[in-house]
Amino acid sequence: MAMEEERVKRSPNKYSTSVLVLHDALILTMDPEKRVFRNGAVAIRGDTILAVGQSQEIVSQFSYLSPQLINLHGHFLLPGFINTHVHTSQQLARGIADDVDLLTWLHDRIWPYESNMTEEDSYISTLLCGIELIHSGVTCFAEAGGQHVPGMARAVELLGIRACLAQSVMDAGEGLPPLWANRTAEEYIQSQKELHKQHNDTADGRIKIWFGLRQIMNSTDGLLTQTRDAAKELKTGIHMHVAEIPYENQLVVERQGVEHGTVTYLEKIELLQNNLLAAHTVWVNDHEIGLLSKSGVKVSHCPAAAMHMLGFAPVREMLDAGVCVSLGTDGAPSNNRMSIVDEMYLASLINKGREVFRKGTTDPTVLPAETILEMATLNGAKSVLWDKEIGSLEVGKKADLIVVNPSSWSMMPVHDSISGLVYSMRTENITSVMCNGHWIMLDKKIMTLNEEEVIFMAKNASRGLLERAGIRIPSRMNFL
Amino acid sequence: MAMEEERVKRSPNKYSTSVLVLHDALILTMDPEKRVFRNGAVAIRGDTILAVGQSQEIVSQFSYLSPQLINLHGHFLLPGFINTHVHTSQQLARGIADDVDLLTWLHDRIWPYESNMTEEDSYISTLLCGIELIHSGVTCFAEAGGQHVPGMARAVELLGIRACLAQSVMDAGEGLPPLWANRTAEEYIQSQKELHKQHNDTADGRIKIWFGLRQIMNSTDGLLTQTRDAAKELKTGIHMHVAEIPYENQLVVERQGVEHGTVTYLEKIELLQNNLLAAHTVWVNDHEIGLLSKSGVKVSHCPAAAMHMLGFAPVREMLDAGVCVSLGTDGAPSNNRMSIVDEMYLASLINKGREVFRKGTTDPTVLPAETILEMATLNGAKSVLWDKEIGSLEVGKKADLIVVNPSSWSMMPVHDSISGLVYSMRTENITSVMCNGHWIMLDKKIMTLNEEEVIFMAKNASRGLLERAGIRIPSRMNFL
Repeated sequence: MAMEEERVKRSPNKYSTSVLVLHDALILTMDPEKRVFRNGAVAIRGDTILAVGQSQEIVSQFSYLSPQLINLHGHFLLPGFINTHVHTSQQLARGIADDVDLLTWLHDRIWPYESNMTEEDSYISTLLCGIELIHSGVTCFAEAGGQHVPGMARAVELLGIRACLAQSVMDAGEGLPPLWANRTAEEYIQSQKELHKQHNDTADGRIKIWFGLRQIMNSTDGLLTQTRDAAKELKTGIHMHVAEIPYENQLVVERQGVEHGTVTYLEKIELLQNNLLAAHTVWVNDHEIGLLSKSGVKVSHCPAAAMHMLGFAPVREMLDAGVCVSLGTDGAPSNNRMSIVDEMYLASLINKGREVFRKGTTDPTVLPAETILEMATLNGAKSVLWDKEIGSLEVGKKADLIVVNPSSWSMMPVHDSISGLVYSMRTENITSVMCNGHWIMLDKKIMTLNEEEVIFMAKNASRGLLERAGIRIPSRMNFL
Repeated sequence: MAMEEERVKRSPNKYSTSVLVLHDALILTMDPEKRVFRNGAVAIRGDTILAVGQSQEIVSQFSYLSPQLINLHGHFLLPGFINTHVHTSQQLARGIADDVDLLTWLHDRIWPYESNMTEEDSYISTLLCGIELIHSGVTCFAEAGGQHVPGMARAVELLGIRACLAQSVMDAGEGLPPLWANRTAEEYIQSQKELHKQHNDTADGRIKIWFGLRQIMNSTDGLLTQTRDAAKELKTGIHMHVAEIPYENQLVVERQGVEHGTVTYLEKIELLQNNLLAAHTVWVNDHEIGLLSKSGVKVSHCPAAAMHMLGFAPVREMLDAGVCVSLGTDGAPSNNRMSIVDEMYLASLINKGREVFRKGTTDPTVLPAETILEMATLNGAKSVLWDKEIGSLEVGKKADLIVVNPSSWSMMPVHDSISGLVYSMRTENITSVMCNGHWIMLDKKIMTLNEEEVIFMAKNASRGLLERAGIRIPSRMNFL
């Protein structure tokens, strides 16, 4: 897309009140009526959407304000995608734990990596991850939890993206590095409250601070209930990995005497509430799906990571039961590709295929494209407790949006524009990304930082980190 | 990659004997010793690989011939990928049959589309598909069968790619368009022999003509056995969809009285031979896997299409039993994305996840990256009966290769270069592609045709074709 400015008539001292009109686009609003304008326009002032409608009407409606007009020449305009489960601190660890069993993955690769990470590493890792997120059209993400929230916050501020950041908190569990195991639940709660105080609503309101729980096997009961209460007190969310593997459920049944697993236990201790974002949530039975639905818990479905390490989440059943399911990429060592565009494609394919095990054959009608798009936008916004401001292109919401060029070898011909966005669109079809009214990517160029510099820093930082952590990756094939 | 020519000293009249040396690359040879040169070089004369080895040695070895030297600056050099199951004629049908059940897919969308296609449509469709294949690093493909082999051949000649082309042959089956049903098996065999005579080994030897069988439910016994004999006579291959859905097996059991399904029956009529390329092969039992292995049948695993419509192929079991399994994209209406790079990623993920249903948990060690790379290269070459000339970078083989730039946001950091190629690499990391000694893509630009022109032609041709075929695609959401 050539972002030609057809008319730029704004007085410099009135910058914040100048109006931008993006017109001649196919606009997928994701509003309650699921309106799609074949030739639509969006008017924006500052960080806010002023109007959405037919091109001609919007252009004429705002002409008296002499807006900046950008002709999108038939490109697609969508709400920015929301990635509801990502470990930005793990970006430097891409490729350190491929094709290894789960215990090796955790004890020999991920924990040594994370426990040797500095705040500067986390900053660089989040920058690198952010670049990939922005390229894939993500304007908001929920951090699953790393060790250095201030480092992440610094990166998010620079990237221009929106984020719910959390610390990864573990106070129990076999093989846990002493650095983490030696702190009490109270200390963890206190430090997270401190982070909330310092960083919540910073960066023009783009940063929210959440509470983090790594997972039930790494949490004392005290940590679970204190987190529940502290999040309620601060009116914020809790991000937690839930029901990832059968062993987790088994352990919970043995230790807590509940009938099935993590979800059943979390209900018992009143952690199942509508501010809980449960990542993965693969091993849940029908009763537990009912509990999730009743309590308004949000689920982040991460199809690539699930296939890689966890299993098939009952996504169709959760959606049918009214659970809000959104999409996440998980971290680079669980997935490698960090594109929500690929996750949309995967979510559709995997859940169609999964029907083999329910009904004997796949079902190509399961999770149609419009459902997947809802998961990546509106449901994402609900999952991060931000749906009053983001997730759709509606008047009064924040201007978080993406521009897609469908006229390439990867999407043409486009006989069904909605399914084309899910099944054919590649990350590289996304040309421009706006967050909070600012272009953070324009014509595939990240506007907020220098990509090459970040890649260079990341290469060095990751090498140093792996050395400090003593992580050795066995070589494959026959290197000469 | 800036393809700088450091020295070009060749006498114009000796063009065919001039030597090209690609050096300073990480070279994945896929040779029998699975050698990887950290800093390697490949020397090429005409269409043939002269030498593969350490950069310094190769450069010095050929310096007396004053070769053209191209410094790849640490990029990765691999054998071209081989896509063993693709419907190039279906590229214009991308998006016409998303999220619909199988019968609607076949009877209301695909058959009307294919039976209304002209040779010119097929030519344009193959060009468009070829562009996507080349971008994803494919230097050779096996056509699953369309209606207009001459159109495909013309496109393949122009694209500069290598292909095994086949007609899609159906002489029986419910709902079959009369155009196809009215021809006898003898006529189909005769016309395919004619195609073989006219097109086999044309385009500098880049085109092979195979026999095509759509699938058992659309084949009379006469067609099956005559195809078997004709392929044997002409020493060529047979491309057939095998054991795609449970209903297919059920029908074969009922009609033919065999114990399990298609594979069992094909063994009985001696069609299971080492020149059979069996696409999908999802619904096979252990006994049938044994039959496939014993007879040397090749299997094309198409993970996206399998998830979308067919089911989980027993890939791990087939490989363990010694079956040669390669990778395919299938056609655009079954998958939408036509990238073998995405199929590598999917094949790994889906087959790890599938272990849940065998062992209760996923197994991240199943189908490691090196196996996937073998499926996309060497096994591909064996599947298309061309492994003496392609599939690895070895002396005497054809110069079919690709250059990958790993230094982007999508692959960095690269801690494990082998797994990085499978789990992190995106189609867009492939910068240059050589087939038969010619650059057919250089720095992401297709060298053999004008992409924009093809996209324009494809848009018009597909619109006309859908109109002629009377295909209507219901619109989703609320279009205004």
